[in-house]
Amino acid sequence: MNQAPTDRTRIRRVATNAHYDSATLHAIIDDAYLCHVAFSDDKGTHCIPTACWREKAHLYIHGSNGSRMVKRLLESACCVTITHLDGLVLARSAFSHSMNYRSAMIYGRFEKVAGADARHAMEAFMEKIVPGRQADVRPGSDKEYAATTVLRITLEEAACKVRSGGPNDDEEDRDWPAWAGVLPFERARAAPVVDPACGLAAPGYVLRWPQG
Amino acid sequence: MNQAPTDRTRIRRVATNAHYDSATLHAIIDDAYLCHVAFSDDKGTHCIPTACWREKAHLYIHGSNGSRMVKRLLESACCVTITHLDGLVLARSAFSHSMNYRSAMIYGRFEKVAGADARHAMEAFMEKIVPGRQADVRPGSDKEYAATTVLRITLEEAACKVRSGGPNDDEEDRDWPAWAGVLPFERARAAPVVDPACGLAAPGYVLRWPQG
Repeated sequence: MNQAPTDRTRIRRVATNAHYDSATLHAIIDDAYLCHVAFSDDKGTHCIPTACWREKAHLYIHGSNGSRMVKRLLESACCVTITHLDGLVLARSAFSHSMNYRSAMIYGRFEKVAGADARHAMEAFMEKIVPGRQADVRPGSDKEYAATTVLRITLEEAACKVRSGGPNDDEEDRDWPAWAGVLPFERARAAPVVDPACGLAAPGYVLRWPQG
Repeated sequence: MNQAPTDRTRIRRVATNAHYDSATLHAIIDDAYLCHVAFSDDKGTHCIPTACWREKAHLYIHGSNGSRMVKRLLESACCVTITHLDGLVLARSAFSHSMNYRSAMIYGRFEKVAGADARHAMEAFMEKIVPGRQADVRPGSDKEYAATTVLRITLEEAACKVRSGGPNDDEEDRDWPAWAGVLPFERARAAPVVDPACGLAAPGYVLRWPQG
């Protein structure tokens, strides 16, 4: 990741919340299962959610060879954004209300990952989704791999914006008699739901799921 | 919402998961605090997370008058996307793995909401964030309203895609000895964090927060 922001990635609104370091960026990506990919074509600008994962200094996605998104992303530049909502910030004045969040924006162009690298990347994806799962499943066939495109984008041109902590009321509002603080969100894991046709004992990664 | 998909909103990949009805669209928006807005300018295509809320058949956002996003959205078309991740779907074959989600895409152009309508919209936003909060806070001043732009986009050209339920393995994979089912996610509410400078008793909407 480029430590110096570019003209596109320099954050101007509440610039004190900006982060341009790889550690912050990697943590935001690694905590996500989905990103939103924005790209443009002759029908307009599109914003499509898709599964993502990271290996070293690239973000990966995949799709069917024939999908519009895959075709367009190999042809032109895009913007990939990930956002985690961490809480509602209740300030004493209406306009000082805010949200706590961690977001990352990546600008660039996807490149195709082929052959053994694509297989390796898809296995890394499974490992990210559920560590330990890969060894249990019926592996992808040559035909399945041939019908799937794996894409990656470098994390060189990226920026993060993070807000955390309590409300920041202006001095003159601090005596206003309204409760102030944060109402936090968490991504929780609920009890696994077994396929009715599955008679197998739950493996460790399923048993451990609700505890995270 | 237009019940018939347009060329842009017709879902082609797993078209059985497509929904074009207002009830599905409204439920997805109403369950969200954030959307991703994609738009293009001379620096490329951008994808920016921002708070959103709905009133009747419009999605609303707001921003500082001077923000790039506000300026661009008043000049050109965009795509607004909301995605809720509900679970990881573990199938018996690697390539049949999926995610459960609810997503909505809206195409169109934002228009500016002014005067009393903007005040009403911002109060509806507060009511969405925390019902009952508006009565407690120091209301927005004329100066604060004047510095803020409220925008809305019609929900006429929109599409939803929803996946729910268990894995769909191909017939020939159904005897593969891998556990199959869903690992669900939930957006949980954690205990409120009071501002250390706040000595007031927590109001009902804060006391009730952790229970949703």
